[in-house]
Amino acid sequence: MFDLKSFEATRAEVHGRIRATPLVYSDSLSALTESQVYLKVESFQLTHSFKVRAAYGGLLPRLEEARRRGAVTGSSGNFAQGLAYVGRELGVPVTVVMLERSARVKVEAARRLGAEIVFCPNDFAQRTATVERIHREQGKVIVHSFDDEGTIRGNGTLGFELLEQLPELDVALVPTSGGGLLAGVAAVVKQVRPQARVYGVQPEFMPSMRVSLEKGEPTYAETKPSVADGLVAACPGRLTFALAKRYVEDVLLVSEEEIVQSVAHLLEHDKLVIEPSGAVGVAALLRHLRPRVRGQKVVVVLTGGNVEPARLVELLGQAAPVGRGK
Amino acid sequence: MFDLKSFEATRAEVHGRIRATPLVYSDSLSALTESQVYLKVESFQLTHSFKVRAAYGGLLPRLEEARRRGAVTGSSGNFAQGLAYVGRELGVPVTVVMLERSARVKVEAARRLGAEIVFCPNDFAQRTATVERIHREQGKVIVHSFDDEGTIRGNGTLGFELLEQLPELDVALVPTSGGGLLAGVAAVVKQVRPQARVYGVQPEFMPSMRVSLEKGEPTYAETKPSVADGLVAACPGRLTFALAKRYVEDVLLVSEEEIVQSVAHLLEHDKLVIEPSGAVGVAALLRHLRPRVRGQKVVVVLTGGNVEPARLVELLGQAAPVGRGK
Repeated sequence: MFDLKSFEATRAEVHGRIRATPLVYSDSLSALTESQVYLKVESFQLTHSFKVRAAYGGLLPRLEEARRRGAVTGSSGNFAQGLAYVGRELGVPVTVVMLERSARVKVEAARRLGAEIVFCPNDFAQRTATVERIHREQGKVIVHSFDDEGTIRGNGTLGFELLEQLPELDVALVPTSGGGLLAGVAAVVKQVRPQARVYGVQPEFMPSMRVSLEKGEPTYAETKPSVADGLVAACPGRLTFALAKRYVEDVLLVSEEEIVQSVAHLLEHDKLVIEPSGAVGVAALLRHLRPRVRGQKVVVVLTGGNVEPARLVELLGQAAPVGRGK
Repeated sequence: MFDLKSFEATRAEVHGRIRATPLVYSDSLSALTESQVYLKVESFQLTHSFKVRAAYGGLLPRLEEARRRGAVTGSSGNFAQGLAYVGRELGVPVTVVMLERSARVKVEAARRLGAEIVFCPNDFAQRTATVERIHREQGKVIVHSFDDEGTIRGNGTLGFELLEQLPELDVALVPTSGGGLLAGVAAVVKQVRPQARVYGVQPEFMPSMRVSLEKGEPTYAETKPSVADGLVAACPGRLTFALAKRYVEDVLLVSEEEIVQSVAHLLEHDKLVIEPSGAVGVAALLRHLRPRVRGQKVVVVLTGGNVEPARLVELLGQAAPVGRGK
């Protein structure tokens, strides 16, 4: 189901519809870690996040049905925009279920891309129930944001790009929520280059994949809201867990303070605007891998740049020492 | 002296020593101008500015002498860091003359790269005199930051990259101070692709190349300090003026407010940290070229990202409306 051929087939279908984002060398992180650190900059992707990869992967295999019936998903974040964008490109009417408390700017962003927004009570179980009700009553095709063969294969396109851009890749760090991107990237990278190591990264406040790997099965972790507000899945998916178990080296945890510092570091030293959820890989590299990657080629995947300027200014104010580097 | 062969020879020498920076598509600027807008992101260049191109171009032709005697230049900005970096790479001792009022952070940045800093009174004529005195007394080779055959040819490397990355380029916008980058890019682009148009961009407060082209000779313009603090040359060079006169379509002027807005726009919509001097091309595109470039392929050169986070926050506070787009 997830052999290399299946990923290659998806890549061929998705190719040309998304951007091959640049891999940018980081002088500062390379110096700090005595290794060669490259940043995979998905903030330059369509909709400023990797989620269009997942959305194409999820929609293309059921395109005819989705065009006829429409597609529905639950997301308040980047997947909402990604699916809305891809739906518009492919002629699929998209409905997104969002919690009532969702930030206005995220609602508007998905609306601008043509999605219909349906609100539900502030509870992820309610969101899932609403998605399923819409599927049942209106026949809309459910596209799950992470635990779906298609979206995982779509995320695999990023793995192929990394290997083309840096064939001698030793280590990759991937921000992890439900594990969709981690699963797709790890499955591709490890099947092509078994000696490479792929790490997931989660906030200490949201350690669902880490806890699940320790327990040996998908497990609901105790969570707290993190500054990395795109990493919200309290439990990995069945598919993403299985792939992570098979292909992922480890899941590294990072603190709230480290996440904020990473956003500030990327802004100051790498000249990039990256949202907190997208920056966790930097934190993990500096905290956990510093001696181990010496002399190696490391890719930090920066998953997105959807952070408002006002929020960014707030984060910079929290990061100490700002303006002085690390 | 500036035929295509001479630029090609320099490019061959410099190639592999600098980075080929990415050309990133701008969804927001493309939509605003109904054209295809690409950003040439020199904030990802070594030392976070294009100036290493100029520095290699300036040092390589006189490398043996410079290694023996050292090199000297006057600059408080990105060229100081660029020359310091390149000197260190090539084994050339570099001396930089800076005004006494120069920002501490710029002094330290050049020092960290191994340059010796000599201070002079706060006056550009004094700076030039000090550079010449050091040349006379100590025999150090002068590398002028813009009016030098070698530095202009080094800047031409950026023109070749643009044409490789976007062979059908119609329009390029280039931030302009003394005119070194403008001259190098325009000479290469127009000799390879005569139908393309290359524009210089200057602050209204610092319109030296614009005034000079109007007068028909290098002319000292009336100037005021601009928020674009890297664009400080009150008069273009003899060489850069001649090349601009021959190859440049026009020099476009932008206001202080427009420059600040452009920094904010690039941060919010393109996820890039660009210093004010590096962002002026965005302002010129939006103010002057909006109807004229419709349907065309436009490159905006973003020359550097050396702006402190605290200063960036200040600029965002001045830009209205921040957080709401244009």
